[in-house]
Amino acid sequence: MKPTLSTCLSPALLHLYPVKDAIVVIIDVFRATSTIAAALYNGASRVIPVEDVDTCKELGSQIDGAITAGERDGKVIEGLQYGNSPAEYPRDFIGGKTLVLTTTNGTKLLHRAVNDGAAEVITGSFPNLGAVTHHLLSQNKNVILGCSAWKNRFNLEDTLFAGAVIKNIKEHFIIHCDSSLMAEQMYDQHKNNLYNFIQHTTHWHRLAAYGLQKDLEFCVTINVANVLPIYTNNELVASHTL
Amino acid sequence: MKPTLSTCLSPALLHLYPVKDAIVVIIDVFRATSTIAAALYNGASRVIPVEDVDTCKELGSQIDGAITAGERDGKVIEGLQYGNSPAEYPRDFIGGKTLVLTTTNGTKLLHRAVNDGAAEVITGSFPNLGAVTHHLLSQNKNVILGCSAWKNRFNLEDTLFAGAVIKNIKEHFIIHCDSSLMAEQMYDQHKNNLYNFIQHTTHWHRLAAYGLQKDLEFCVTINVANVLPIYTNNELVASHTL
Repeated sequence: MKPTLSTCLSPALLHLYPVKDAIVVIIDVFRATSTIAAALYNGASRVIPVEDVDTCKELGSQIDGAITAGERDGKVIEGLQYGNSPAEYPRDFIGGKTLVLTTTNGTKLLHRAVNDGAAEVITGSFPNLGAVTHHLLSQNKNVILGCSAWKNRFNLEDTLFAGAVIKNIKEHFIIHCDSSLMAEQMYDQHKNNLYNFIQHTTHWHRLAAYGLQKDLEFCVTINVANVLPIYTNNELVASHTL
Repeated sequence: MKPTLSTCLSPALLHLYPVKDAIVVIIDVFRATSTIAAALYNGASRVIPVEDVDTCKELGSQIDGAITAGERDGKVIEGLQYGNSPAEYPRDFIGGKTLVLTTTNGTKLLHRAVNDGAAEVITGSFPNLGAVTHHLLSQNKNVILGCSAWKNRFNLEDTLFAGAVIKNIKEHFIIHCDSSLMAEQMYDQHKNNLYNFIQHTTHWHRLAAYGLQKDLEFCVTINVANVLPIYTNNELVASHTL
């Protein structure tokens, strides 16, 4: 029998889904899971996602050569070194290093999925769509696409990525889930015009005000950092099975 | 300044929205708010929505001539008289009577909106779309479109109705909300073919198994029971301002 696939539109709804023994894909398109893909694709040895700034600083001081990163309102947080932009992590800078990244929406969801007994937690965004779908097809396990949303509110960019995954792999899963049907249709409707469409989203307006248009374009560009980040021992590392 | 409009996709997310002093539209297309519209349109003096079966029986025994109604798994609940089908409430039966209706998803959301200090709570579905939009346009207040969902999970039919409302009145509101944008686009995509599209939803599959196709067709037919149910003193009554 085929495994099941569901789409969870907000961390506040994750308890409604059968997380235990499923693969959970953490989706935070603007910008955490896009930046994670970029850093690992460019050779970071690992990314440690943390929820709060103090933990970020603490780990940064403990780990030799670690880069600490995080933003609030479009600015690097005081006491951290870099921001949340995927463009800040080219190979000649991040190669071989540890990135300690503080993000709010995505990290909370990731920790919750781990605590709820997920078989595996991976992260996805358009830059690593191919690696995510390739992996899900190879595992024959139930899948939950977990949108990080914005402070628990539905957002379109994460939904569109869930739709892109579904569009690519749906024949291989049982899907009885209106959110998956909606996500796929929204992606289908806008897939040839993603960069224009996301300019209608609330998150675009929030981030574009900080001059981050180039970042956002990267975040919706398919397979430009095609790596599979797997969460293991509190850190995300690139899978070498691709 | 224009008032704001937001769409809340699940009762579990209502706390994220500014309910206080807003008009909250309770949406439970399959079938509570469609049946409420049908009963009031056909002359019921009032509909009392209750969450549990015991309260339903108790009120039924206290109120002279009251009709008690509720279903589980497509069958009338033991001890109650009628079901959740809008077709069960024609004028010559329900005219002048009190309907005590037990529903789960919609009633919970309704009570929560009241407790959170909503300025007004009304109910909507396709059969009374016109009455709802007419009323919202006349009030100049902030609006929250509250989807009842299915056990807190996103559903398409409630989202489509939210989209229909938005499509009709959006010029008169400030809307910064990805769920509203999504709802409107989903409605726009399927508005000429609603009855066919809803056959892809999970709820359709659940209810069609009980032979309720005719009911579901009524539930997505616009303005066939065009009345405005307003919640006041624990009961829904038809507004006479239309």
